[in-house]
Amino acid sequence: MKKTLILETAHLLLSKHITKDDIVVDATMGNGYDTLYLASLAKKVYAFDIQKQALIETKKKLDEQNIKHVELILDTHEKINQYVSNYKGVVFNLGYLPNADKSITTTKESTLNAINQILPNLKTNGFILLVIYIGHEQGKIESKAIQDYIKTLDPTLYKIAKIELPYQNNQPPYIIFIQKEKDEG
Amino acid sequence: MKKTLILETAHLLLSKHITKDDIVVDATMGNGYDTLYLASLAKKVYAFDIQKQALIETKKKLDEQNIKHVELILDTHEKINQYVSNYKGVVFNLGYLPNADKSITTTKESTLNAINQILPNLKTNGFILLVIYIGHEQGKIESKAIQDYIKTLDPTLYKIAKIELPYQNNQPPYIIFIQKEKDEG
Repeated sequence: MKKTLILETAHLLLSKHITKDDIVVDATMGNGYDTLYLASLAKKVYAFDIQKQALIETKKKLDEQNIKHVELILDTHEKINQYVSNYKGVVFNLGYLPNADKSITTTKESTLNAINQILPNLKTNGFILLVIYIGHEQGKIESKAIQDYIKTLDPTLYKIAKIELPYQNNQPPYIIFIQKEKDEG
Repeated sequence: MKKTLILETAHLLLSKHITKDDIVVDATMGNGYDTLYLASLAKKVYAFDIQKQALIETKKKLDEQNIKHVELILDTHEKINQYVSNYKGVVFNLGYLPNADKSITTTKESTLNAINQILPNLKTNGFILLVIYIGHEQGKIESKAIQDYIKTLDPTLYKIAKIELPYQNNQPPYIIFIQKEKDEG
């Protein structure tokens, strides 16, 4: 698969922030491409999806490459903290699973609820990376809600970057990268 | 000097795209910080400024570190092509020179004129990086003009990314990174 520009950039960012000592979470397993990429960087990956199809697809890809340090979890990313602790970062690739039921997408409620639970658990330099698509209606709503939410975050605790590309598009997909400046604990 | 977040990010991007075989241009020498950073990456750096004070400051910094592969040019960046050919990339850090005459800033005319001359000369993977500040009036005008301009660029020839941070600011500085997809010649 040729990566889109936005995914290429997201993966570049991840490669800068994840080491072989890190536990990371793929909050939106989908077709498993991010899960596989995270597995190439981290000590351990936990990947979540509410659709069984996502786990089947991803397991197939992992088995082909004989990758063992990934745990696939059939549950919502709103429950990440019940399954994983001590994660370095969490990745959200928002929207619906390609080639599956398009009525099942991430929603602003589940996404914001998940982010809200993850942030206090991040250590210094821990991060959340979100890839956001605004080409579909639910995506626009989710995008707006996320933008409103992150503007409320304390800039002394979190540094946030927004990356849009390709910029000539009318509704370019974008990345929000939130990094914890210092541990709250 | 502690780098600002936006400069740190700009320098990270530059480090990804410049090698020791490359000739690069600092279109806005200013206090010379970018010039010095470019010198650490490239084979040769040409740096432009219309203010003599910029050349004095930058020469001092270069001499302190005994850096010889940088040429300082007292002229507008609208004339880059008269001095340099075969550059890999050009960096613009827009706005006024800190601690100098604040009435002398880059303007949308000079900036767009320069960009317009540089783009056709870029080879495949060549780039222009712009750091844009919108906290002052002239900056807002320049920013708007640049945004309007880049949206007209052919997406099959140029890929463009926009990076804003820190995002919680009301008027965050941002980076525009334009990369040539393929040579026109």
